[in-house]
Amino acid sequence: MSLVVVGSIAFDAVKTPFGERERMLGGSAVHFSMAASFFTDVRVVGPVGDDFGDEEYAVLRDRGVNTDDIEHVAGGKTFFWKGEYEWNLNIRHTHDTQLNVFGEFQPKVSDASASADVLFLANIQPDLQREVREQCSGAKLAGLDSMNLWIDTARESLVRTIGTVDVVLMNDDEIRMLTEQPTLLRAARDIMDMGPSTVVVKLGEYGASLFTGDGFFSLPAYPHETVIDPTGAGDCFAGGFLGYLASEGSPSDDASLRRAMTFGSVVASFNVEQFGTERLQALTRGEIDERYEDFRRMTAIDQVPAL
Amino acid sequence: MSLVVVGSIAFDAVKTPFGERERMLGGSAVHFSMAASFFTDVRVVGPVGDDFGDEEYAVLRDRGVNTDDIEHVAGGKTFFWKGEYEWNLNIRHTHDTQLNVFGEFQPKVSDASASADVLFLANIQPDLQREVREQCSGAKLAGLDSMNLWIDTARESLVRTIGTVDVVLMNDDEIRMLTEQPTLLRAARDIMDMGPSTVVVKLGEYGASLFTGDGFFSLPAYPHETVIDPTGAGDCFAGGFLGYLASEGSPSDDASLRRAMTFGSVVASFNVEQFGTERLQALTRGEIDERYEDFRRMTAIDQVPAL
Repeated sequence: MSLVVVGSIAFDAVKTPFGERERMLGGSAVHFSMAASFFTDVRVVGPVGDDFGDEEYAVLRDRGVNTDDIEHVAGGKTFFWKGEYEWNLNIRHTHDTQLNVFGEFQPKVSDASASADVLFLANIQPDLQREVREQCSGAKLAGLDSMNLWIDTARESLVRTIGTVDVVLMNDDEIRMLTEQPTLLRAARDIMDMGPSTVVVKLGEYGASLFTGDGFFSLPAYPHETVIDPTGAGDCFAGGFLGYLASEGSPSDDASLRRAMTFGSVVASFNVEQFGTERLQALTRGEIDERYEDFRRMTAIDQVPAL
Repeated sequence: MSLVVVGSIAFDAVKTPFGERERMLGGSAVHFSMAASFFTDVRVVGPVGDDFGDEEYAVLRDRGVNTDDIEHVAGGKTFFWKGEYEWNLNIRHTHDTQLNVFGEFQPKVSDASASADVLFLANIQPDLQREVREQCSGAKLAGLDSMNLWIDTARESLVRTIGTVDVVLMNDDEIRMLTEQPTLLRAARDIMDMGPSTVVVKLGEYGASLFTGDGFFSLPAYPHETVIDPTGAGDCFAGGFLGYLASEGSPSDDASLRRAMTFGSVVASFNVEQFGTERLQALTRGEIDERYEDFRRMTAIDQVPAL
């Protein structure tokens, strides 16, 4: 099944305790599509400026990502983000945000994107997310992410948009902030009351939890000795999650969702091993399947069940 | 196998978003021993004052906990702690700490305790922990917990004490603070370099992770709709973990450690359902085994493996 993602395309400057990059390809739609590309056909919708050239397109195309719906804004500059992680990588500081062409972004959904089977609305303004959702009316499965900024400034719109999707993938701080609930189970139920059947809570270094009507599943993050760059891990998780579901015809049964959680965790775990998109550019499907087995071994209480 | 725990016995005053208690039985040795009592014979070593009476002894004895080594300090008062949890239960504020008899505590280990097979050094001053460890020289399996206070004020002693035990059970903030490592895997390896073969990192609402020489295992916390009182959950985890291992002859293989992690998680999950020791006073072994099955179901990636 085909998958389309709408979100940011960016240049990132990132400093972590293990090194830094002055300028590299980033953005939620980039990380998501790179991750999803290991499972299914994926198209990217997002704006770029004159500074976005062949080299950047090649990173996406080399992974088979369809870039036809990337909108080149003549005379504009691409979204730029500069951030730094502390020794405790859970703590991140933003030093600079230049929205540039992303600030005026009005998603234009081509016929091909509008007819995609699966849709991911990465973290953009919730009114825009809803417009895209309406244009992609044929999507059998739609998911979204959001952030504290929109919970603060556009809460009502965000709640309406959540009502139009099947899966919400957000981090635990955001989900608590949105619902004002003290436990993740209550928070997830509140979100399901808004419409979605499935809530995935991203927990950063603690992994991710899945809530459905009567189901719960949780996975730890892969235990890395060194995390080079956590940027984009959440988007890679979403890409692996929805990419896998798209590849299977967007099933919604518990077993499929658990496998999707695992593939999401696997791809995210690779992404943090190098800066930006560097690791995913070199990643192979064989490595993904090997680490999937690692996850089965490291989470089995009694024994590793036979495949 | 017999198990002995050395630690605090306390009265706690606790306020959470779901209620409060002015004065209830608490302390690390109390929570630990109540939890371990579901699996094996357990003795408590710790000091109490004149305010500790039949009612408090009865809570422990009703669970079969041996209280012969509880030291009654005539004219003294029992350790008192007063704290409050925010709506986000991960955030706790201490309003009052009265060490009382615990401030002068010099553990006296009876012959019966000295010959216990398994020893748990709950969070007390590391010099005292080491003295107890030396007295209990016959223990085949010894574990310890600690806290930020001792990492700050008695780091060298704590490292020496860690060198005398097999298992360290600490929370992730403490383990990061002690080792100054950015990832839990590196932190755990640093601790194993100090001597222990096993490191259990308690993650609060995110569960717990197990590190051994070449092994990793992680479990989420049980997804509660409401958490009434998180106090003592970590000690209950340790009690279930070591209690189970003691009941099995203190094995150190990976499968046994994973089951111990699960029993620890199960007992901790019950403890937070009511204030203080209230839930464990009413808990049955049947409920424990049922929830153990819940943990198997909620962590199995592909299917629930047959027992």
